[in-house]
Amino acid sequence: MLELPTSRDACLALDAADPLAAHRDAFALPPGVIYLDGNSLGPLPARTEAVLRDVITRQWGTDLIKSWNTAGWIDLPRRVGDRIGALVGAAPGQVIVADSTSVNLFKVLSAAVSMRPGRTVIVSEPENFPTDLYMAQGLIRQLGDTHSLRLVGPDALAGALGPDVAAVMLTHVNYRSGAMYDMAAVTAQVHAAGALMIWDLAHSAGAVPVALDAAGADLAVGCGYKYLNGGPGAPAFLYVAERHQASFAQPLSGWLGHAAPFAFETEYRPAEGVSRFLCGTPPILSMSALEVGVETVAAAGMAALREKSMALTTLFAARAALRCPSTTPASPADAARRGSQFCLRHPQAYAVMQALIERGVIGDFRTPDILRFGFAPLYVRFVDVWDAVETLADILDTGAWERPEFHARKAVT
Amino acid sequence: MLELPTSRDACLALDAADPLAAHRDAFALPPGVIYLDGNSLGPLPARTEAVLRDVITRQWGTDLIKSWNTAGWIDLPRRVGDRIGALVGAAPGQVIVADSTSVNLFKVLSAAVSMRPGRTVIVSEPENFPTDLYMAQGLIRQLGDTHSLRLVGPDALAGALGPDVAAVMLTHVNYRSGAMYDMAAVTAQVHAAGALMIWDLAHSAGAVPVALDAAGADLAVGCGYKYLNGGPGAPAFLYVAERHQASFAQPLSGWLGHAAPFAFETEYRPAEGVSRFLCGTPPILSMSALEVGVETVAAAGMAALREKSMALTTLFAARAALRCPSTTPASPADAARRGSQFCLRHPQAYAVMQALIERGVIGDFRTPDILRFGFAPLYVRFVDVWDAVETLADILDTGAWERPEFHARKAVT
Repeated sequence: MLELPTSRDACLALDAADPLAAHRDAFALPPGVIYLDGNSLGPLPARTEAVLRDVITRQWGTDLIKSWNTAGWIDLPRRVGDRIGALVGAAPGQVIVADSTSVNLFKVLSAAVSMRPGRTVIVSEPENFPTDLYMAQGLIRQLGDTHSLRLVGPDALAGALGPDVAAVMLTHVNYRSGAMYDMAAVTAQVHAAGALMIWDLAHSAGAVPVALDAAGADLAVGCGYKYLNGGPGAPAFLYVAERHQASFAQPLSGWLGHAAPFAFETEYRPAEGVSRFLCGTPPILSMSALEVGVETVAAAGMAALREKSMALTTLFAARAALRCPSTTPASPADAARRGSQFCLRHPQAYAVMQALIERGVIGDFRTPDILRFGFAPLYVRFVDVWDAVETLADILDTGAWERPEFHARKAVT
Repeated sequence: MLELPTSRDACLALDAADPLAAHRDAFALPPGVIYLDGNSLGPLPARTEAVLRDVITRQWGTDLIKSWNTAGWIDLPRRVGDRIGALVGAAPGQVIVADSTSVNLFKVLSAAVSMRPGRTVIVSEPENFPTDLYMAQGLIRQLGDTHSLRLVGPDALAGALGPDVAAVMLTHVNYRSGAMYDMAAVTAQVHAAGALMIWDLAHSAGAVPVALDAAGADLAVGCGYKYLNGGPGAPAFLYVAERHQASFAQPLSGWLGHAAPFAFETEYRPAEGVSRFLCGTPPILSMSALEVGVETVAAAGMAALREKSMALTTLFAARAALRCPSTTPASPADAARRGSQFCLRHPQAYAVMQALIERGVIGDFRTPDILRFGFAPLYVRFVDVWDAVETLADILDTGAWERPEFHARKAVT
């Protein structure tokens, strides 16, 4: 762990010595902005525009349908999947890129439930990201309410793992608090109860080291547009442990998950391996942008990223405690138990965040009273953390958030 | 109906007088290519590169997450949906862009089945595009085989519509033969049997006039990357007739289909209207490209496109009958009963198509013996049709397809 800087100059010195500093140049960040919202939308990698121009003008425009073969479009879901797999501790052949996180959750939840006949409960937590709960609710309705969703907080998990539990679905790093589960320990606990473990890595992939294989995880999903910098609404990914691939079936059995998509057979026959979790034709432009985003993370390495990330969140927490006494921390105090973000509570969080954004410090608001800040160590500097807290302190000290325009709610918050 | 040209010069004259001729400039077609595969992948619109550059560098790169509000990303599924709606005869508020055709089929099939409790059969045809059948099979497996799929050819449809039928799912224009159903007549027949009608418009949207509302259609899906020129794997669309929107539920109940996505509630509450058929976060880059592609079609108007399309396929059929006697037609002889494509059978269709592609005439092969040619009147000229048939005739007459490299199968055909 780095020693925390105690002055702005000390931050600048840390940045100058930062072995990750050069990776900031891999992003096209707008000037004058401190971007602490890469956990909502990762910023634009510098290479993406040129890569997409090539995909659009040469692969699509000139080579047209040939590119399914010559540019490897048909292999993109597996190829980018394996690249993401390397970031989340999954050996090749277990991760594919496809659809959205929500749709992928439906696939793995369906598969998990069908693997545990007679068990009728899906366990999750009330603070999980809502779409995870909504997808489970949709599946349960479709199954005719033969199953149910049991929501318990982290402390009550052990008591909820009865013999009726088919699967446990948790988000590894909580979207709001940033609290991180011990993946190996929870997975073992769930397995001991005879259930399958589904991890949502939306706030983990590219943010914290993840070891899916080593943790014995069964299934996982994750997001391409946060710490993987794949662009707005980038396709999501899905992990199925190799030991389950032959026996798992999922209901979204589209043609690209077929053993022979271009044989145009009337009956579905699942492809070997994780490819059976593909469904329809993937959005190649968005998936090509995701590949660039994944490369920005892979170039740095998760261990170095994690070390800096913990230093950044620790510095932020310490400075906020000192300079912003009207806020209270909403993330775990121990850096090892949180992801790459730190949140503060403030009764006027929405307006405070609008005031911050106006001054170029971009985080986001999460209902009801959360100021959420993501610290992606690829491009966030120590001096950014220092300046962000100083800006926040000034807004709080001067009541700048009180301006009426900061209270007008936007469609997307 | 135009009089058919009987010489290459007459084709050139027709092209010179073609009121749609200028629309060809809206595409960045590679030189030396006759592109008759827009029914597999529409070509690149000339504006797409610049629009995507703006989406990437300004909307994403500079404005970052603000673009969900300021660039209207959050409204894209509805906005592009309404634009597509205008092309398929759907009043605003009934079409959204989301996910893939396969995933959307799962949504509407699930919804249809749940609307007809006690009815346990889904009717389709064995020659439907396979992914449609696969998605129905996946749904049926998930429902515990309480339902079944009844496959009948067009002539046997009436006899298959018993009181046990919940929904009929047909592709309006067949992907292989190009045969087109009478949408209004079939829909009325299905309704008379008490079932719901689901149309797959993959080969119809942007290709032939469609009047979903006037035909009384219940549900439809369609593809963005064929005649809508949205780019490889472009997002798909989905139609739900307004009268069904309040009562329809679908199991892929993701957060963007929630009544208040950013309230982060624990329980799913469906949004009003067609938005409840949204699921996860949409791929903005691919969806922005689709918007440009849809505009290329809207600028021409479906009536003019259809008139030229029928002339193009008629010319092709007539010339192929004359010049390529070793082929047999695989599409309806009556232009009014087919879509914007024409197919020929040849026992060596795969190799023949490879030889054609090598000479710059791009169509595609469909198993087992189909040469498939799409004629998108936005950019295909009469002289292209003439030249394509001459090239095909030469390949067949000289046995040019016999070269061994034309027989090596590619991954994507």
